[in-house]
Amino acid sequence: MSLVVMKFGGSSVGDTERMKRVAKRIVAKKEEGHKVVVVVSAMGDTTDDLIDLAKSITDRPAAREMDMLLTTGEQVSVALLAMAIQELGTPAISYTGWQAGMITDEAHGRAKINDIKPKRIMESLEQGKIVIVAGFQGISDDGEITTLGRGGSDTTAVAIAAAIQADLCEIYTDVDGVYSTDPRIVKHARKLDAISYDEMLELANLGAAILHPRAVEYAKQYNVKLVVRSSFTNAEGTLVKEEAAMEQGIVVRGIAYDKNVARISIQGVKDEPGILAAVFTALAEAGIDVDIIVQSGISNGTADFSFTVHLEDAERAKSVIEGIRDRVEFEKVTSETDLVKVSIVGAGMVSNPGVAAKMFDVISKQGVNIKMVSTSEIKISCVIDVTHLTEVILALHSAFDLDTNQTAFVGGPKERR
Amino acid sequence: MSLVVMKFGGSSVGDTERMKRVAKRIVAKKEEGHKVVVVVSAMGDTTDDLIDLAKSITDRPAAREMDMLLTTGEQVSVALLAMAIQELGTPAISYTGWQAGMITDEAHGRAKINDIKPKRIMESLEQGKIVIVAGFQGISDDGEITTLGRGGSDTTAVAIAAAIQADLCEIYTDVDGVYSTDPRIVKHARKLDAISYDEMLELANLGAAILHPRAVEYAKQYNVKLVVRSSFTNAEGTLVKEEAAMEQGIVVRGIAYDKNVARISIQGVKDEPGILAAVFTALAEAGIDVDIIVQSGISNGTADFSFTVHLEDAERAKSVIEGIRDRVEFEKVTSETDLVKVSIVGAGMVSNPGVAAKMFDVISKQGVNIKMVSTSEIKISCVIDVTHLTEVILALHSAFDLDTNQTAFVGGPKERR
Repeated sequence: MSLVVMKFGGSSVGDTERMKRVAKRIVAKKEEGHKVVVVVSAMGDTTDDLIDLAKSITDRPAAREMDMLLTTGEQVSVALLAMAIQELGTPAISYTGWQAGMITDEAHGRAKINDIKPKRIMESLEQGKIVIVAGFQGISDDGEITTLGRGGSDTTAVAIAAAIQADLCEIYTDVDGVYSTDPRIVKHARKLDAISYDEMLELANLGAAILHPRAVEYAKQYNVKLVVRSSFTNAEGTLVKEEAAMEQGIVVRGIAYDKNVARISIQGVKDEPGILAAVFTALAEAGIDVDIIVQSGISNGTADFSFTVHLEDAERAKSVIEGIRDRVEFEKVTSETDLVKVSIVGAGMVSNPGVAAKMFDVISKQGVNIKMVSTSEIKISCVIDVTHLTEVILALHSAFDLDTNQTAFVGGPKERR
Repeated sequence: MSLVVMKFGGSSVGDTERMKRVAKRIVAKKEEGHKVVVVVSAMGDTTDDLIDLAKSITDRPAAREMDMLLTTGEQVSVALLAMAIQELGTPAISYTGWQAGMITDEAHGRAKINDIKPKRIMESLEQGKIVIVAGFQGISDDGEITTLGRGGSDTTAVAIAAAIQADLCEIYTDVDGVYSTDPRIVKHARKLDAISYDEMLELANLGAAILHPRAVEYAKQYNVKLVVRSSFTNAEGTLVKEEAAMEQGIVVRGIAYDKNVARISIQGVKDEPGILAAVFTALAEAGIDVDIIVQSGISNGTADFSFTVHLEDAERAKSVIEGIRDRVEFEKVTSETDLVKVSIVGAGMVSNPGVAAKMFDVISKQGVNIKMVSTSEIKISCVIDVTHLTEVILALHSAFDLDTNQTAFVGGPKERR
């Protein structure tokens, strides 16, 4: 008998019919002889509906009250799912985040888990019950209701799996696993059997939507064995686990892309110490995340440099730069959109020199200009014009043997909580 | 500066526009110099919608899970109301039942308040905040979420008022006070300035819907000064207070009626000891409340008797009686509907003999047959055919000087929680 955590996202429990299907799946798992803890998100569009309700009252709701409001969504889900399981004749009990012992800090809307006290979960498991925990929520030491922010329910599931030393944490979602690349672009993209935490983390950070990076980090930190699988089919899904356990010899496991990229260029910056620090401090204070940074040639004592931000932050980033003209001398600031960041990811890359060169070569042979580059130990990203996305991904997929090998991409509609 | 508890029912916060109006009213109260605690119900039809959701999953939801489900309704209300008040520039904070320290027993769906620990309420008041508490809900010693059942939010408001020694507990509802009788029947029915706890309790128990009997009992027990007033107008409302403080000399304060009455008659019951006990024990075990009981003449060693039950329980009551034929010998059991119970209520009645006789006389003079009678120290009820309701109430209203005096009736659409 093993101890399994099953996490179902909002679309998996979008209405009561789907909830009944999920209940059957959960009961079947228990009848296989496992102890089962379920983590569930708010039903379908509930969270968005609640946000709309708040917006009809105020444009600037207090984060504390938003947490009070939004956590009701998961509470409704756990109660209904408990009823659906009980209706099948199987004992079940629902818990809110605070009842389940999810202790967080006080950062409303983006709280971090400080501790888990799974006493009630364990007691209910001992009583033979299926335990259903509201995802995304916790309680601070002061008794305030908090939410974990984006990816919260994934994180809840992984954190509970770690706390109760579960044998497996299954993330049920609306895609049936991790693919070598987006199947909408490459029809012969392949579903992976397995992927390492680090690879999954890079893919998640690159905007792939199945698993939130925080949840993957947590899983890696506590060595929680994860499976990503569909809540609508019985397909096997993709196992996320330690690198050491992975098959060897695969350089590139998957290709991801992110269209939400804008390039900001600052031209004619006076080349003085502290200039870069001034620029990026100002952006950080405005809450704008900067990704790739490239400094180009210096001439006549001035430099040009450029960086990428999220598409939505492009105009604001320009305003921030314009706003520090008193501290930073520069000629002009411009922004460029209609870009895409294409990334190849693979743990094998670190020991294979020439992977970057090969990527650049493949892209160049398509007649496509690479505008920016960034690399990490297991990832290389190139920013190109979005018009070339399909041809570049097809070429890379083939060049790195992904048409035949086991490879990785996470795509499909987002299910964040 | 006084300390005031304001309670708003579901229809008062039926949508976000109404909620904004309620927020203004609350802020105005604070700006008059009072400390304010607000108790609020779930918005409009929220509770019914949640019940429908549960019913779409199971016909027999566990009471614990229903509490988990339904308490989200009030949680949404308190969060939104806090936002609406904050939007007006006034500090506010929302609390769930458990955060507000509403400690109850474990009886899910009909929990009783065991204790209130208003530490957080008092702290927030000291910080100059308007405190908003979710009505209808609490927490058991084991950390289980409970609901107080019918009249729950009224009870929450009164219980908090008692615990924090508030100067006043205002119940805002969709009628503007307590009337001498139903204004839909008697156009010149008058709004009362004041009514005693006991009178209010009788009226509430007679099906009048503004205040739940439990809340009135609680108010009486802890001597909480209550005001019933409209959330839509600035009319003064009706004060509910101690009898000693009431004006003297008024015999009948109000007239109430209840159409949800059925009469069950058992004929030809063998007149043996223990028969009545057997019948009413069986009904109690089936959860059927019995109101008026009348035993009629005994002949040939058999007796007839009849009693009233809630209209909805009539068929079930008959089945229960049929089901004890092995223990109780009787000829037949019948039920009668299309009845109404008309009651006159007044604390002055107890010291005025002849009030009952006068009531019977007034009804008889209308040519109406009285089918059953019951009396208490401050109430006399007669069951008659519902077809005569209007003429009987008009005649009583006039005969007991209610057309001119201060009198009492609570009517209008129900707002239970």
